Amino acid sequence: MDANNQIISVNVEAPYNVTVGWNLLERLELPHKRVALIYDSKLPSSLVKKVSSHFELSIPLPSGEACKSLEVHAKVLSELAKHAFPRDAAIVALGGGATSDLAGYVAASYLRGVAFYNLPTSLLGMVDASVGGKTGVNLPEGKNLVGAFHQPRAVWADLETLQSLPERVWKEGMAEMFKHGLLEREAAVPRFFEKSDLEQPDFLSTLARSIRVKAEIVARDPFEAGERAHLNLGHTLGHALEWASNHSLSHGEAIGYGLLYAAILSRLENRSTWMGKAAEFLEWMRPSPLPTRNFEDLIPLMARDKKATSDGLKFVLLDGPGNPYTARVALNRQHQAFQEFLKVVDNIEQRASASRSLLPTPEVP
Amino acid sequence: MDANNQIISVNVEAPYNVTVGWNLLERLELPHKRVALIYDSKLPSSLVKKVSSHFELSIPLPSGEACKSLEVHAKVLSELAKHAFPRDAAIVALGGGATSDLAGYVAASYLRGVAFYNLPTSLLGMVDASVGGKTGVNLPEGKNLVGAFHQPRAVWADLETLQSLPERVWKEGMAEMFKHGLLEREAAVPRFFEKSDLEQPDFLSTLARSIRVKAEIVARDPFEAGERAHLNLGHTLGHALEWASNHSLSHGEAIGYGLLYAAILSRLENRSTWMGKAAEFLEWMRPSPLPTRNFEDLIPLMARDKKATSDGLKFVLLDGPGNPYTARVALNRQHQAFQEFLKVVDNIEQRASASRSLLPTPEVP
Repeated sequence: MDANNQIISVNVEAPYNVTVGWNLLERLELPHKRVALIYDSKLPSSLVKKVSSHFELSIPLPSGEACKSLEVHAKVLSELAKHAFPRDAAIVALGGGATSDLAGYVAASYLRGVAFYNLPTSLLGMVDASVGGKTGVNLPEGKNLVGAFHQPRAVWADLETLQSLPERVWKEGMAEMFKHGLLEREAAVPRFFEKSDLEQPDFLSTLARSIRVKAEIVARDPFEAGERAHLNLGHTLGHALEWASNHSLSHGEAIGYGLLYAAILSRLENRSTWMGKAAEFLEWMRPSPLPTRNFEDLIPLMARDKKATSDGLKFVLLDGPGNPYTARVALNRQHQAFQEFLKVVDNIEQRASASRSLLPTPEVP
Repeated sequence: MDANNQIISVNVEAPYNVTVGWNLLERLELPHKRVALIYDSKLPSSLVKKVSSHFELSIPLPSGEACKSLEVHAKVLSELAKHAFPRDAAIVALGGGATSDLAGYVAASYLRGVAFYNLPTSLLGMVDASVGGKTGVNLPEGKNLVGAFHQPRAVWADLETLQSLPERVWKEGMAEMFKHGLLEREAAVPRFFEKSDLEQPDFLSTLARSIRVKAEIVARDPFEAGERAHLNLGHTLGHALEWASNHSLSHGEAIGYGLLYAAILSRLENRSTWMGKAAEFLEWMRPSPLPTRNFEDLIPLMARDKKATSDGLKFVLLDGPGNPYTARVALNRQHQAFQEFLKVVDNIEQRASASRSLLPTPEVP
């Protein structure tokens, strides 16, 4: 193990460590006689082999969000039952956030709960899903509507697994790191790391710091009774867009858009001025196009947000970086913010297409 | 509310009360704006109407064990999502143990957990499922293999709901009351109440006492890390028989058989002498016939018992009433006990058929 590796403690009821660094997957040893690996079937087979060789049973999942269904959940549970996995067995997830959401919910619900370990293989999975114990699946009616809180016993985030990550998926993770920086304080907002920066030491330390932001919030509010809702900054519109796009928009891209919308709402509500930073991030990210320009399409999807209560929907706003709060926002204000949001998005797209037209036409090989 | 009603406190992390008595369902008021009732579709419609009139949405379930599937779970979750039930909504179960197992698991998993209230309508549901927070469904591979621990906020056990209970279902509940008495101490083993005893004051106090036995064990061991396993007295063989019968044997009948088997195993292991009482109970109960007389059929089903670990299966034994413990039992001893069990069951059946032949032939109306 590399001496530069970083360990983040997550002080929930049964505390656990997230280890971030290099060469973590070489010598996995777990204190369980029987272990099932649940992995994303699109991972490089060399990576899967390296991990699966340690364990008795390996169960492949449909890649990405497609695995987060009650049908896949039921199939994996039956697989464990067929092998008569007992209560002291363990589940290990190898994959991105969707894989660990599904595998974690399997671990939470099989025999009313067995031990869970997580090996995130995406930047988003490392910075977001690896901490907090939220597990779950989607319903036809909305995202993450079913699940459980089930903390892992340990998380190992091996940067080697990021080497095969597509550029677009890398940027998804940067969206959550950007969000964590906004929640911490102005000076903590990270520079926008490219995938080619993977081996730079300040990337490792920035990633560890970003995970720590979430770990500290989760430790103070493990069941999302209050403060933890701040982690949903950008997620109210973001989830609605992701859902409206039928997943042509990735989670991270949706959050990139959602953060810009939250910045505009914040400016209208409290005159804070972090909108420029959010627009700059979105321009850097170059997300797929918006699935709709009609706010009316998004309202019923936002109503399914898990921050919604019988009294209506709340947004997470930021009175400048480091000062998050939740608030109800008048519907006409939401509409107004969405119109401004569309203008900023259009400007970004115009600049992007202008810069593309300045580039030499790529040669077809 | 009747002054004779009894309240049992269940001192888990978020303590709650079980109220047992009469006229409890007349004036239900819950501190939630939005409430969904989930009920057994075979309940008398007058009872369902009395309760459902208090709430916004009512969802009927297939009656009995048939509701405990991942398919029904998924349908009910979708129903809640379609109505955009929020996190501060509540789920109320009205039905027997199967209904509350399913409804409780819906409450545990919808939006990662919403408030749950239970109105048991069977004696078994009152004495067993109403306390402990175990929720869950079956898999094709075995019973209760999926679920969560999710404590109710309150339980109201209204004896009026037992008036329409079939004789056979009544006796199921008595099997668990018999088991709780065995766990408490010799003097606590209850007399075998008939359904016609429902309105006798000593029935109400005995029922409350039986619920208290479970409440005290659950409070000491909410997640079944140790002592709570004692509540599985009779359940290792019982569940296997229930499963082998494809539910032609009810849960309570299976437990009736399982308690006799546990009594015989106990006698072989520790010379305790409560077997006579267990045989007497089974004779009083007159359960449906055994689904198999071949112990080999039952071994793989017992291996799925949730007390099984990577090191093998444990049984709950009793060194006399009040002295339960868990222990591994050699396989040849298990076989020997099963042969003795068959002999006792055969004797009981012979006496029952002899007494039937002495009765006047019933007239066909």
